[in-house]
Amino acid sequence: MYKSKIFTVGKTKETWLHGAQSEYTKRLQPTIEISWILAKNNEQLESFLDNEKSFISLDPEGLLLTSEEFSILIHKKLEMWGSRINFVIGSAEGLTPKIKTRSTNLLSLSPLTFTHQLTRVILLEQLYRSFEINKGSPYHK
Amino acid sequence: MYKSKIFTVGKTKETWLHGAQSEYTKRLQPTIEISWILAKNNEQLESFLDNEKSFISLDPEGLLLTSEEFSILIHKKLEMWGSRINFVIGSAEGLTPKIKTRSTNLLSLSPLTFTHQLTRVILLEQLYRSFEINKGSPYHK
Repeated sequence: MYKSKIFTVGKTKETWLHGAQSEYTKRLQPTIEISWILAKNNEQLESFLDNEKSFISLDPEGLLLTSEEFSILIHKKLEMWGSRINFVIGSAEGLTPKIKTRSTNLLSLSPLTFTHQLTRVILLEQLYRSFEINKGSPYHK
Repeated sequence: MYKSKIFTVGKTKETWLHGAQSEYTKRLQPTIEISWILAKNNEQLESFLDNEKSFISLDPEGLLLTSEEFSILIHKKLEMWGSRINFVIGSAEGLTPKIKTRSTNLLSLSPLTFTHQLTRVILLEQLYRSFEINKGSPYHK
Protein backbone atom coordinates (compact mmCIF):
# COMPACT_ATOMS: atom_id res chain seq x y z
CA MET A 1 0.00 0.00 0.00
CA TYR A 2 1.43 3.33 -1.13
CA LYS A 3 1.04 6.56 0.77
CA SER A 4 0.96 10.11 -0.50
CA LYS A 5 0.82 13.44 1.26
CA ILE A 6 -0.36 16.38 -0.80
CA PHE A 7 0.68 19.71 0.70
CA THR A 8 -1.19 22.81 -0.37
CA VAL A 9 -2.60 26.13 0.81
CA GLY A 10 -6.24 26.70 1.73
CA LYS A 11 -9.31 24.53 1.97
CA THR A 12 -11.10 23.15 -1.05
CA LYS A 13 -13.62 25.87 -1.78
CA GLU A 14 -16.33 24.70 -4.10
CA THR A 15 -18.75 21.82 -3.65
CA TRP A 16 -17.97 20.32 -7.06
CA LEU A 17 -14.27 20.24 -6.16
CA HIS A 18 -15.10 18.32 -2.99
CA GLY A 19 -17.10 15.88 -5.11
CA ALA A 20 -14.24 15.44 -7.58
CA GLN A 21 -11.68 14.96 -4.83
CA SER A 22 -13.69 12.34 -3.00
CA GLU A 23 -14.45 10.50 -6.25
CA TYR A 24 -10.75 10.17 -7.14
CA THR A 25 -9.66 9.53 -3.54
CA LYS A 26 -12.13 6.62 -3.48
CA ARG A 27 -10.79 5.24 -6.75
CA LEU A 28 -7.20 5.56 -5.50
CA GLN A 29 -7.91 4.01 -2.08
CA PRO A 30 -7.06 0.38 -2.97
CA THR A 31 -3.64 1.49 -4.26
CA ILE A 32 -2.59 4.64 -2.46
CA GLU A 33 -3.69 6.46 0.66
CA ILE A 34 -3.95 10.21 0.04
CA SER A 35 -3.56 12.65 2.96
CA TRP A 36 -4.19 16.33 2.36
CA ILE A 37 -1.98 18.65 4.42
CA LEU A 38 -3.60 22.07 4.19
CA ALA A 39 -1.54 25.09 5.23
CA LYS A 40 -3.08 28.46 5.99
CA ASN A 41 -0.46 30.37 3.99
CA ASN A 42 2.93 30.01 2.28
CA GLU A 43 4.80 30.49 5.56
CA GLN A 44 3.00 27.58 7.19
CA LEU A 45 3.46 25.51 4.04
CA GLU A 46 7.23 26.05 4.28
CA SER A 47 7.25 25.00 7.93
CA PHE A 48 5.17 21.85 7.19
CA LEU A 49 7.73 20.91 4.51
CA ASP A 50 10.69 21.39 6.88
CA ASN A 51 10.22 17.78 8.02
CA GLU A 52 10.00 16.34 4.50
CA LYS A 53 13.12 15.18 2.69
CA SER A 54 11.68 14.56 -0.76
CA PHE A 55 8.72 16.03 -2.56
CA ILE A 56 7.56 16.83 -6.07
CA SER A 57 6.21 20.33 -6.58
CA LEU A 58 3.89 21.49 -9.31
CA ASP A 59 5.19 24.65 -10.91
CA PRO A 60 4.73 26.44 -14.27
CA GLU A 61 8.52 26.22 -14.76
CA GLY A 62 8.47 22.46 -14.14
CA LEU A 63 8.96 19.65 -16.61
CA LEU A 64 6.05 18.88 -18.96
CA LEU A 65 5.41 15.15 -19.15
CA THR A 66 3.03 12.87 -20.97
CA SER A 67 0.83 10.64 -18.78
CA GLU A 68 3.06 7.65 -19.67
CA GLU A 69 6.20 9.54 -18.54
CA PHE A 70 4.39 10.72 -15.41
CA SER A 71 3.48 7.11 -14.61
CA ILE A 72 7.09 5.94 -15.01
CA LEU A 73 8.33 8.80 -12.80
CA ILE A 74 5.74 8.08 -10.08
CA HIS A 75 6.61 4.39 -9.97
CA LYS A 76 10.38 5.08 -9.82
CA LYS A 77 9.87 7.54 -6.98
CA LEU A 78 7.63 5.13 -5.04
CA GLU A 79 10.43 2.57 -5.28
CA MET A 80 13.15 5.03 -4.29
CA TRP A 81 11.14 6.64 -1.51
CA GLY A 82 9.85 3.48 0.21
CA SER A 83 6.31 3.49 -1.20
CA ARG A 84 5.82 7.12 -0.19
CA ILE A 85 5.38 10.06 -2.54
CA ASN A 86 4.67 13.65 -1.58
CA PHE A 87 3.41 16.50 -3.70
CA VAL A 88 3.21 20.24 -3.22
CA ILE A 89 0.67 22.47 -4.96
CA GLY A 90 1.58 26.12 -4.42
CA SER A 91 -0.91 28.79 -3.43
CA ALA A 92 -2.48 31.16 -5.99
CA GLU A 93 0.77 33.17 -5.68
CA GLY A 94 2.82 30.11 -6.66
CA LEU A 95 5.65 28.39 -4.80
CA THR A 96 8.01 30.35 -2.56
CA PRO A 97 11.69 30.40 -3.63
CA LYS A 98 12.55 28.22 -0.60
CA ILE A 99 10.04 25.51 -1.56
CA LYS A 100 11.14 25.68 -5.20
CA THR A 101 14.77 25.16 -4.21
CA ARG A 102 13.98 22.34 -1.80
CA SER A 103 11.75 20.42 -4.26
CA THR A 104 13.23 17.15 -5.51
CA ASN A 105 11.44 17.65 -8.82
CA LEU A 106 9.39 20.41 -10.40
CA LEU A 107 6.62 19.24 -12.69
CA SER A 108 4.16 21.23 -14.78
CA LEU A 109 0.71 19.90 -15.65
CA SER A 110 0.38 22.15 -18.70
CA PRO A 111 1.70 25.39 -20.22
CA LEU A 112 -1.81 26.69 -19.44
CA THR A 113 -2.41 28.17 -16.00
CA PHE A 114 -5.02 26.31 -13.94
CA THR A 115 -6.50 27.43 -10.63
CA HIS A 116 -4.64 25.79 -7.76
CA GLN A 117 -8.00 24.29 -6.77
CA LEU A 118 -8.53 22.63 -10.17
CA THR A 119 -4.90 21.47 -10.02
CA ARG A 120 -5.88 19.26 -7.05
CA VAL A 121 -8.37 17.35 -9.19
CA ILE A 122 -6.02 17.10 -12.19
CA LEU A 123 -3.22 15.75 -9.97
CA LEU A 124 -5.53 13.09 -8.48
CA GLU A 125 -6.75 12.06 -11.93
CA GLN A 126 -3.17 11.76 -13.19
CA LEU A 127 -2.20 9.68 -10.16
CA TYR A 128 -5.14 7.37 -10.79
CA ARG A 129 -4.20 7.24 -14.50
CA SER A 130 -0.55 6.49 -13.69
CA PHE A 131 -1.54 3.35 -11.73
CA GLU A 132 -3.94 2.28 -14.49
CA ILE A 133 -1.16 2.75 -17.08
CA ASN A 134 1.15 0.61 -14.97
CA LYS A 135 -1.51 -2.11 -14.73
CA GLY A 136 -2.11 -1.92 -18.49
CA SER A 137 -5.80 -1.21 -17.85
CA PRO A 138 -8.07 0.11 -20.63
CA TYR A 139 -8.66 3.37 -18.63
CA HIS A 140 -5.69 4.83 -20.47
CA LYS A 141 -5.07 4.19 -24.13
CA MET B 1 -22.43 39.03 -26.57
CA TYR B 2 -20.31 36.15 -27.80
CA LYS B 3 -21.65 32.70 -28.57
CA SER B 4 -19.91 29.36 -28.39
CA LYS B 5 -21.01 25.86 -29.32
CA ILE B 6 -19.07 23.03 -27.75
CA PHE B 7 -19.49 19.77 -29.67
CA THR B 8 -18.70 16.55 -27.87
CA VAL B 9 -19.74 12.93 -27.42
CA GLY B 10 -21.83 11.65 -24.53
CA LYS B 11 -23.58 13.24 -21.59
CA THR B 12 -21.72 14.63 -18.61
CA LYS B 13 -21.55 11.64 -16.32
CA GLU B 14 -20.64 12.59 -12.80
CA THR B 15 -22.44 14.94 -10.45
CA TRP B 16 -19.29 16.92 -9.66
CA LEU B 17 -18.73 17.53 -13.38
CA HIS B 18 -22.27 18.91 -13.67
CA GLY B 19 -21.49 21.21 -10.72
CA ALA B 20 -18.24 22.38 -12.31
CA GLN B 21 -19.87 22.98 -15.69
CA SER B 22 -22.73 25.00 -14.27
CA GLU B 23 -20.37 27.03 -12.10
CA TYR B 24 -18.23 28.08 -15.08
CA THR B 25 -21.21 28.48 -17.44
CA LYS B 26 -22.68 30.92 -14.88
CA ARG B 27 -19.42 32.86 -14.67
CA LEU B 28 -19.17 33.00 -18.46
CA GLN B 29 -22.82 34.02 -19.00
CA PRO B 30 -22.30 37.82 -19.02
CA THR B 31 -19.65 37.45 -21.75
CA ILE B 32 -20.37 34.33 -23.76
CA GLU B 33 -23.32 32.02 -24.20
CA ILE B 34 -22.23 28.37 -24.13
CA SER B 35 -24.33 25.72 -25.91
CA TRP B 36 -23.40 22.07 -25.51
CA ILE B 37 -24.05 19.95 -28.58
CA LEU B 38 -23.88 16.36 -27.40
CA ALA B 39 -23.54 13.62 -30.02
CA LYS B 40 -24.23 9.96 -29.29
CA ASN B 41 -21.12 8.77 -31.11
CA ASN B 42 -18.35 9.88 -33.47
CA GLU B 43 -20.55 9.37 -36.53
CA GLN B 44 -23.22 11.73 -35.22
CA LEU B 45 -20.51 14.19 -34.16
CA GLU B 46 -19.23 14.26 -37.76
CA SER B 47 -22.74 14.89 -39.10
CA PHE B 48 -23.35 17.70 -36.55
CA LEU B 49 -20.14 19.34 -37.74
CA ASP B 50 -21.09 19.13 -41.42
CA ASN B 51 -22.92 22.44 -41.03
CA GLU B 52 -20.05 24.22 -39.29
CA LYS B 53 -17.43 26.09 -41.29
CA SER B 54 -14.92 26.83 -38.56
CA PHE B 55 -14.13 25.10 -35.29
CA ILE B 56 -11.24 24.51 -32.93
CA SER B 57 -10.68 20.89 -31.91
CA LEU B 58 -8.87 19.69 -28.84
CA ASP B 59 -6.39 16.99 -29.73
CA PRO B 60 -3.20 15.54 -28.20
CA GLU B 61 -1.36 16.47 -31.43
CA GLY B 62 -2.58 20.06 -31.21
CA LEU B 63 -0.65 23.17 -30.36
CA LEU B 64 0.30 23.70 -26.71
CA LEU B 65 -0.39 27.27 -25.64
CA THR B 66 0.00 29.30 -22.50
CA SER B 67 -3.19 30.87 -21.11
CA GLU B 68 -2.05 34.26 -22.46
CA GLU B 69 -1.60 32.81 -25.96
CA PHE B 70 -4.94 31.00 -25.69
CA SER B 71 -6.62 34.29 -24.76
CA ILE B 72 -5.10 36.08 -27.78
CA LEU B 73 -6.16 33.26 -30.10
CA ILE B 74 -9.73 33.22 -28.73
CA HIS B 75 -10.13 36.96 -29.15
CA LYS B 76 -8.74 36.90 -32.72
CA LYS B 77 -11.11 34.09 -33.67
CA LEU B 78 -14.11 35.87 -32.11
CA GLU B 79 -13.28 38.88 -34.27
CA MET B 80 -12.76 36.80 -37.44
CA TRP B 81 -15.77 34.59 -36.89
CA GLY B 82 -18.37 37.27 -36.04
CA SER B 83 -18.39 36.82 -32.25
CA ARG B 84 -18.89 33.06 -32.62
CA ILE B 85 -16.41 30.38 -31.60
CA ASN B 86 -16.95 26.64 -31.74
CA PHE B 87 -14.99 23.87 -30.06
CA VAL B 88 -14.88 20.12 -30.49
CA ILE B 89 -13.87 17.71 -27.73
CA GLY B 90 -13.41 14.22 -29.16
CA SER B 91 -14.79 11.07 -27.59
CA ALA B 92 -12.65 8.77 -25.41
CA GLU B 93 -11.39 7.32 -28.72
CA GLY B 94 -10.23 10.77 -29.85
CA LEU B 95 -11.15 12.73 -32.98
CA THR B 96 -11.98 10.96 -36.23
CA PRO B 97 -9.64 11.66 -39.19
CA LYS B 98 -12.44 13.58 -40.92
CA ILE B 99 -12.95 15.92 -37.95
CA LYS B 100 -9.20 16.35 -37.53
CA THR B 101 -8.82 17.36 -41.18
CA ARG B 102 -11.80 19.71 -41.10
CA SER B 103 -10.70 21.50 -37.88
CA THR B 104 -9.57 25.09 -38.38
CA ASN B 105 -7.14 24.67 -35.49
CA LEU B 106 -6.01 21.80 -33.30
CA LEU B 107 -5.14 22.74 -29.74
CA SER B 108 -3.82 20.61 -26.90
CA LEU B 109 -4.55 21.43 -23.26
CA SER B 110 -1.50 19.51 -22.00
CA PRO B 111 0.93 16.74 -22.98
CA LEU B 112 -0.89 14.79 -20.22
CA THR B 113 -3.99 12.85 -21.20
CA PHE B 114 -7.16 13.98 -19.42
CA THR B 115 -10.54 12.28 -19.50
CA HIS B 116 -12.75 13.87 -22.15
CA GLN B 117 -15.17 14.66 -19.32
CA LEU B 118 -12.53 16.58 -17.28
CA THR B 119 -11.50 18.31 -20.53
CA ARG B 120 -14.95 19.98 -20.57
CA VAL B 121 -14.25 21.67 -17.25
CA ILE B 122 -10.69 22.64 -18.18
CA LEU B 123 -11.88 24.20 -21.45
CA LEU B 124 -14.56 26.24 -19.64
CA GLU B 125 -12.03 27.41 -17.05
CA GLN B 126 -9.60 28.46 -19.79
CA LEU B 127 -12.36 30.32 -21.64
CA TYR B 128 -13.26 32.16 -18.44
CA ARG B 129 -9.56 32.85 -17.83
CA SER B 130 -9.07 34.12 -21.39
CA PHE B 131 -11.74 36.80 -20.92
CA GLU B 132 -10.31 37.75 -17.53
CA ILE B 133 -6.82 38.06 -19.10
CA ASN B 134 -8.25 40.31 -21.79
CA LYS B 135 -9.92 42.51 -19.14
CA GLY B 136 -6.68 42.64 -17.15
CA SER B 137 -8.53 41.26 -14.10
CA PRO B 138 -6.63 39.89 -11.10
CA TYR B 139 -8.11 36.38 -11.69
CA HIS B 140 -5.08 35.64 -13.83
CA LYS B 141 -1.64 36.78 -12.79
